[in-house]
Amino acid sequence: MLQLYFFPMACSLSSRIALLEAGLDAQYHFAHIWTKKVVDDGSDFRGVSPKGAVPVLVLENGERLTECAAVLQYIADLKPEMGLAPAFGDPDRYRLQEWLSFIAAEIHKGFLYPTFWYRDDGSLAKPRARIAQTLSVPAEHVADREFLVGDRFTVADAHLAWALLLLRPAGVDIAQWPSLSAYLERMQTRPAVREAIATEMALRKTLAA
Amino acid sequence: MLQLYFFPMACSLSSRIALLEAGLDAQYHFAHIWTKKVVDDGSDFRGVSPKGAVPVLVLENGERLTECAAVLQYIADLKPEMGLAPAFGDPDRYRLQEWLSFIAAEIHKGFLYPTFWYRDDGSLAKPRARIAQTLSVPAEHVADREFLVGDRFTVADAHLAWALLLLRPAGVDIAQWPSLSAYLERMQTRPAVREAIATEMALRKTLAA
Repeated sequence: MLQLYFFPMACSLSSRIALLEAGLDAQYHFAHIWTKKVVDDGSDFRGVSPKGAVPVLVLENGERLTECAAVLQYIADLKPEMGLAPAFGDPDRYRLQEWLSFIAAEIHKGFLYPTFWYRDDGSLAKPRARIAQTLSVPAEHVADREFLVGDRFTVADAHLAWALLLLRPAGVDIAQWPSLSAYLERMQTRPAVREAIATEMALRKTLAA
Repeated sequence: MLQLYFFPMACSLSSRIALLEAGLDAQYHFAHIWTKKVVDDGSDFRGVSPKGAVPVLVLENGERLTECAAVLQYIADLKPEMGLAPAFGDPDRYRLQEWLSFIAAEIHKGFLYPTFWYRDDGSLAKPRARIAQTLSVPAEHVADREFLVGDRFTVADAHLAWALLLLRPAGVDIAQWPSLSAYLERMQTRPAVREAIATEMALRKTLAA
């Protein structure tokens, strides 16, 4: 069975959403990314992945795959009939990769990461100054589209939904971009998205503030 | 014909390397990412891509593709016989995606981007403190491998070679990681890599300091 190492409400949430959307069973392991311990057994998370970051997907053959873009495409391709990624050979596959990269590099590493890990104003002034320009890109894109890529839900939507959810605790009110607010609301009507968020919010509350 | 919007020695260098390795003809347009002008004709680069970032690959059908991970995989797939990306269905394809994501998110956006765009010490203290841990991941990986993925050169190598080249002007001496130094030297023996660097270094020198 697949195994997913996650931290509640970290970017591994999109991998959980993808697994639920695909109808794939998986074992979930809570990896504490602050302490680098696996909560199940107290073992060293760096023994699972030297990066010490989530998601880590343990494949059926025991290999470990990291990085959201790779993990999400891997999960999508296990169940091609679910359409969670355009098939290889479909030009939209590159659009999916384009969005996965943009979300990871510009929203996550360019803004959310410094906000949650660095915290000091010196580190944050420049990322804060840039985030509105960054968000204008998906806001314009979803102004007249239901989903990021093609006409159905893909793992790119799982990833953007996660990133938009995290913007609020990062101090950005996405109500400034009505198309993004409406998009996030649409995504949150999906049972898999709601279940993933409910599960991880409950676990998140178990963490000391 | 394909067209590539690039800025000399920016991350679009890896797209140029990929085009040369693939033996694909392309028109190259110098996009000045500081002024957001296309140098050819002084037009607004945001008219080409609202992101105002390179690379932008103009496809044969006129569509524009952005983000290194997507552009590099697109180029590789145009010439599958060159092996610049593992075929779809090969498990190594996800390893390629994993490396492309890691290089873009952790080395580029996590370190090179703040170094070149933010510059102030407040912005840079945390990225500087993290870069050694980040680089230990590829350093360990290439200690006993010639290439990042499988046993041949892929677009992931094009991207890592670019990132390693930029570490020196960003103040990081990769001689601390002998495996990375040796890897970069190996990559620079390839005619396509040398040609791409020579072309862009010459253009870079035309920029005012």
